[in-house]
Amino acid sequence: MEKIKAAIVGYGNIGKFVLEALEAAPDFQVTGIVRRAGATDCPKELTDYKIVKEISELKGPDKPQVAILAVPSRKAQEYASQILPLGINTVDSFDIHSLIPETRKALQQVAEKAGKVAVISAGWDPGSDSIVRALMQAMAPKGLTYTNFGPGMSMGHSVACKAIEGVKDALSMTIPVGTGIHRRMVYVELFDGYDLASVAAAIKADPYFVNDETHVMQVESVDSVKDMGHGVNLVRKGVSGKTQNQLFEFDMKINNPALTAQILVGAARAAMRQAPGCYTMIEIPVIDFLEGDRDSLIAHLV
Amino acid sequence: MEKIKAAIVGYGNIGKFVLEALEAAPDFQVTGIVRRAGATDCPKELTDYKIVKEISELKGPDKPQVAILAVPSRKAQEYASQILPLGINTVDSFDIHSLIPETRKALQQVAEKAGKVAVISAGWDPGSDSIVRALMQAMAPKGLTYTNFGPGMSMGHSVACKAIEGVKDALSMTIPVGTGIHRRMVYVELFDGYDLASVAAAIKADPYFVNDETHVMQVESVDSVKDMGHGVNLVRKGVSGKTQNQLFEFDMKINNPALTAQILVGAARAAMRQAPGCYTMIEIPVIDFLEGDRDSLIAHLV
Repeated sequence: MEKIKAAIVGYGNIGKFVLEALEAAPDFQVTGIVRRAGATDCPKELTDYKIVKEISELKGPDKPQVAILAVPSRKAQEYASQILPLGINTVDSFDIHSLIPETRKALQQVAEKAGKVAVISAGWDPGSDSIVRALMQAMAPKGLTYTNFGPGMSMGHSVACKAIEGVKDALSMTIPVGTGIHRRMVYVELFDGYDLASVAAAIKADPYFVNDETHVMQVESVDSVKDMGHGVNLVRKGVSGKTQNQLFEFDMKINNPALTAQILVGAARAAMRQAPGCYTMIEIPVIDFLEGDRDSLIAHLV
Repeated sequence: MEKIKAAIVGYGNIGKFVLEALEAAPDFQVTGIVRRAGATDCPKELTDYKIVKEISELKGPDKPQVAILAVPSRKAQEYASQILPLGINTVDSFDIHSLIPETRKALQQVAEKAGKVAVISAGWDPGSDSIVRALMQAMAPKGLTYTNFGPGMSMGHSVACKAIEGVKDALSMTIPVGTGIHRRMVYVELFDGYDLASVAAAIKADPYFVNDETHVMQVESVDSVKDMGHGVNLVRKGVSGKTQNQLFEFDMKINNPALTAQILVGAARAAMRQAPGCYTMIEIPVIDFLEGDRDSLIAHLV
């Protein structure tokens, strides 16, 4: 079996888990890892891999067929736009929901021109949750779906807290309270000379928090309460045809970066099987994310 | 907007709910209903529809683009093989899991030759559950998935009971006891002169029941305890990359024929959007089952 040649672009938290998922996938071969720092201060687990600063350095037998972009969301489109014209498919987990349609349109043009495939927003939300939401809507076209996140750490909210004066480190936990409403439990480590009451007031007034029930607590070490578990609970109550009260629920408790990385690897596989263009996950047959013989997958899963 | 012209083939329990789902769908037009009895003893709700004995009688502006086969599973392939060459797409909810691969292969040839699309096994299991199983496997490639059915009526098991001597009517309820194991709770109405003990022994010895914990109870009226609610609970615990203990669960409580019918209608829509061939649901992008503008579906669901 010819293995799919993949490169990882960005080697932060998600990139590390992407490498693990690629090493665990029997149909992939890692031809290189692109890091800003290149081989400087290279983590031990990368010893056997080719480390480069630019993806264009991966040439000949090392040229990847697909690049997995483990870069910050706001950089994803820029990287994809540079890499697709090199004749390399791209996948990312771009997660700014409101910008997905325009990002898809922009990369559609780039991908078509390059004759390559871009899969965007391939994480768990957006991503696998999007497939579940679309499926639930297909099963009951009329009705309401609620996406309840957590309990788990919100990266965006934690970063927003750290920007507030007096905060040395912060962890913002998202707690689902049902119907898509969330409570924020914020754990902060303060610099000397700052008091909790004023920092808490500043956090609660921040745009990230102002609309949610927010509790701020002081801890000695944020690191000692951090855990990368997360979860989601998706519920829909709706109407199939003219029949009311159809009830659907999807629930998961997962390691957040590990799941994102696994889905990115599935999307990299799927990218090899689509016509040129840009796709979100709901536009790709679910079987295309899976490794293995198609007939036997159908026999076992359908 | 040009509406999709659909015919319903078979007007039993599922067919009635298919008509409701088509009437509720803004993008469909029912051009006829095919019944063995034709217009004889026609139910009141069909007054405004064209009723025929053979689909070939639906001609000119009444010729359907897609036929929704609401016929018994073992008749589905035969009907599809006759209808596809007429230049009409077909969808069915064929549910004999072990025969799906060969049915798909056979209809693949017929559909390709006709330049049309057949979607098979488009119900909830096989069907929407298959999509959830495939998605869970994409999220955690290593691990175990259990499909727990019920509580709800099993058609196959109820029919098997009715074939046993002395049984006037029967309802076999499937009760999930976890890890894909099911208890059978059987409610029987007996003909005069038969006793419960011997009938119960015969049921428990039947191939449908012999491997499951089975309880048989006598009731005065099976009809008075019958309800078409059903459910499923799908669970997977697995590994994403090298990270263990990823937990996924899908749960639903639904009206069984209403959901099957709704999914058939979604599959009929999807059939219009695929290249010629035969497809199970996991081979079709989830967005294709949905009504509405593609860009706006992506903006709302992804």
